[in-house]
Amino acid sequence: MSQIDHDKYRKLLKIQQNNALLKTSQAVLGWDQEVMMPKGGIEWRARQLGFLAGLAHERSTTPEIGKLLQECEQDQTLTSAPRSVHGTNLRMWRREYDKATKLPVSLVKEIAETRSLAQSAWSEAKDKSDFSIFLPFLEKNLELSKREAECYGAPEGGELWDALADNYEPGANAKEISEIFGPLRDRLAALIQEVQEKGSAPDTSFLDVAVPISRQDKFGRLVLESMGYDFNHGRLDESSHPFTQSFSPADVRITTRYQETNFLDALGSTMHEGGHALYEQGLPMETAGTPASEAISLGIHESQSRLWENMVGRSRSFWQWSTPLVHDILGSGLTPYDSEAFYRGSNRVQASLIRVEADETTYNLHIMIRFELELRLFRGTLEAKDLPCAWNKLYQSLLGVKVPNDAKGCLQDIHWALGIFGYFPTYTLGNLYAAQFFAKAEEDLGCMDDAFAKGQFKTLLAWLREKIHRQGSRFFPGELCEQVTGRKLSSDAFFSYLEKKVRETHGI
Amino acid sequence: MSQIDHDKYRKLLKIQQNNALLKTSQAVLGWDQEVMMPKGGIEWRARQLGFLAGLAHERSTTPEIGKLLQECEQDQTLTSAPRSVHGTNLRMWRREYDKATKLPVSLVKEIAETRSLAQSAWSEAKDKSDFSIFLPFLEKNLELSKREAECYGAPEGGELWDALADNYEPGANAKEISEIFGPLRDRLAALIQEVQEKGSAPDTSFLDVAVPISRQDKFGRLVLESMGYDFNHGRLDESSHPFTQSFSPADVRITTRYQETNFLDALGSTMHEGGHALYEQGLPMETAGTPASEAISLGIHESQSRLWENMVGRSRSFWQWSTPLVHDILGSGLTPYDSEAFYRGSNRVQASLIRVEADETTYNLHIMIRFELELRLFRGTLEAKDLPCAWNKLYQSLLGVKVPNDAKGCLQDIHWALGIFGYFPTYTLGNLYAAQFFAKAEEDLGCMDDAFAKGQFKTLLAWLREKIHRQGSRFFPGELCEQVTGRKLSSDAFFSYLEKKVRETHGI
Repeated sequence: MSQIDHDKYRKLLKIQQNNALLKTSQAVLGWDQEVMMPKGGIEWRARQLGFLAGLAHERSTTPEIGKLLQECEQDQTLTSAPRSVHGTNLRMWRREYDKATKLPVSLVKEIAETRSLAQSAWSEAKDKSDFSIFLPFLEKNLELSKREAECYGAPEGGELWDALADNYEPGANAKEISEIFGPLRDRLAALIQEVQEKGSAPDTSFLDVAVPISRQDKFGRLVLESMGYDFNHGRLDESSHPFTQSFSPADVRITTRYQETNFLDALGSTMHEGGHALYEQGLPMETAGTPASEAISLGIHESQSRLWENMVGRSRSFWQWSTPLVHDILGSGLTPYDSEAFYRGSNRVQASLIRVEADETTYNLHIMIRFELELRLFRGTLEAKDLPCAWNKLYQSLLGVKVPNDAKGCLQDIHWALGIFGYFPTYTLGNLYAAQFFAKAEEDLGCMDDAFAKGQFKTLLAWLREKIHRQGSRFFPGELCEQVTGRKLSSDAFFSYLEKKVRETHGI
Repeated sequence: MSQIDHDKYRKLLKIQQNNALLKTSQAVLGWDQEVMMPKGGIEWRARQLGFLAGLAHERSTTPEIGKLLQECEQDQTLTSAPRSVHGTNLRMWRREYDKATKLPVSLVKEIAETRSLAQSAWSEAKDKSDFSIFLPFLEKNLELSKREAECYGAPEGGELWDALADNYEPGANAKEISEIFGPLRDRLAALIQEVQEKGSAPDTSFLDVAVPISRQDKFGRLVLESMGYDFNHGRLDESSHPFTQSFSPADVRITTRYQETNFLDALGSTMHEGGHALYEQGLPMETAGTPASEAISLGIHESQSRLWENMVGRSRSFWQWSTPLVHDILGSGLTPYDSEAFYRGSNRVQASLIRVEADETTYNLHIMIRFELELRLFRGTLEAKDLPCAWNKLYQSLLGVKVPNDAKGCLQDIHWALGIFGYFPTYTLGNLYAAQFFAKAEEDLGCMDDAFAKGQFKTLLAWLREKIHRQGSRFFPGELCEQVTGRKLSSDAFFSYLEKKVRETHGI
């Protein structure tokens, strides 16, 4: 780099790092609001967050950034190494800056105001199971999201929906996702049918055993530590919706939730968030506050949470290790169950109505239904008012369940109330990435069953750290997948992994 | 107000309220750091706080504020009601703006850098009980504080030290404080001598009874609720140094600390911080983010904490109410002690070395020693190198204790390491304000012993709310005292209150 450009890059870096300090400060207030804040503090907190958000937007869209970006981009010495730290940062800063400056302030405000109203209408509609309360807000959210997408512009050869999906999964588009989802959908449907016809349902009576929350907490912490989660750079708390919040790779906090019965729910949430947190803790601290130290996408993020929750936490070897601990820590009510019982019971396949309660197999069909409906809404082949009917039909045909009311149907998720479109597929993409990564890890490292059965997960974590975590935003998700696994994303690894486990646990 | 000035005031108000949102956001990060943050998060947190502090300083010293202030001040319709909300705000904003803009940025930076070094030198010096390690930093801190005071300028007829004291106690000056402290010092010394010669020391063996921390926590919460602390707008946590942190009157959090033995330590801390918190929760929410809703001084703040900790928490009637609860909640180890035992034991007078462990009577002598030494250092009649010797002499002559080493002597407090001069007297001023307010409350409301003995503190709180809390920064501390009690601050009320209690509890 020549001295002049070095200076310009450093100047830009300083601005962007300061903006990261501001945004992660907002995140501290957000975490506090969810986990610690007394209820009565909400009004002032909303004002604090509103002010900080405005400030962050202002500072992220200042023309100075545009000017410095342009100057840096004109210098080949800076752009010739696209995978370097500065190459990565310049590319991702450009993306963010263009996205942020393409939206007129008036639209940003209208979106914020509408979403707030839509969220409370959705909440009421869900409580009353009355879609008509939500309908006008859904229509408005759709209209605003389409306008937002138009501001970004559809990618070359793509469609409007893609512009939104790109916010969560850089480079994703409906065409490629459909090509991946299509075959998987058929194979999953066939597998589920086979389970229903020939499988014997695993016993899950251990879910009825009451386990004191303090014991579940102790067990969860032990599992997190075994996974490699660093409590010196994180903490575990309770919240009604489990989530992970990172301020920097040196402070990554997770929450979980506990019920007295169904200890698997807390364990699954803890391992899931633990997986997210391992990704964040594994990003390079030395470039914190820049894209080189940011997770690249929601799909890749979900791959890390699902890998630990499912590929590890629902494996036979995991239960071989943890069952004596379960007996010891969670109490005598669970001693009648052996590791095989936990292995089988934690993998039970059962078609159901609610996405967030779905098992690993049927879950993806819930996602595909949403993906299909979103596309139809965006393409104009489905009107918002016809959503419940279309929803219920798909649940009947794909999952074989009858939706009794809209609260348990198309009103179950908050996403569309928040105006979040293009997001749902990242859940299934995460599952597919997870399986493809895991298969490659087993190829590189050999079978890890013996290690898992001893509670040793460090080799796996080290592989994930090197191949995925430390990459930050160097590669787009699709590129990262090819880079790590040597092939494009497909559902093959996922389906093989799943089919084997489902057959084993259902005696087929 | 004319429309034009109304607009200018509103514009200024908006700027200042936004700055308050920014500063209280910093405060959230500060609270989180002390109470919740994992240790490993400190480096990033320091960067976040450094950035936010710089931003807040920049936004508080923008010439636009100066211009708007001047324009508002030139309009009589705005300045003619100095006790109104806008009158209060304009007066206090002017104070803050002048103080902030009088310090050159270079000095602010030098102070920040030096204090950071001084703090770690002090820490080492205290650990090794070696004053020579701290001496050069003390000298530097003194020099910088004098330069800071020179920037502000000594008040008319006052001295340099006053300019710093004014930061903590608006309008305070060494001359008036000396006039108040002088007679009190003699009376306290005489009282302590009488206790030592004629008094019988109360039994404090209940402090050796181990009480599980969860029980102490439960008891502390019950006391806080009885005091009127609102948990819907606050929370109680543990930290090594108890403190109160307000983000707005709607979110005021306190911390305390627990030891297994000496349950009085946690109770005292909890009631002390509870008193601070009641002040903050009682500030008017409708003007939150402006001086009209800010505590006026450290001395008045301390009056509220000490009133609840001592006038309430060390009263006979408080123990009459709480002793059955102590027996019930804190456990059987304490049942041998009756309310008189707790009353007497919690008021034991005993000269000691360490300020933060001192009883209500001797505490003020610790403060006076520091006040006298600070003045000498500022007036140039004591050199920093001679501090240990002067310190030890005063402890011998005033408290009759021999200082064995500097760790237990002049290195015990962090204040001078942080470059905080002019602060110490506010602790004793707080005690005096507390007693004078409390005497007036009893004059207005009648004796409250019967109410306290039933755990009823609401009448007292309502009086404090009306007379003190809701006043915000409308009056300077001295003015507030005259406004509320009808007379200037003196030590009379405090000494009468104290003498009566000490004689009662020590059988004199």
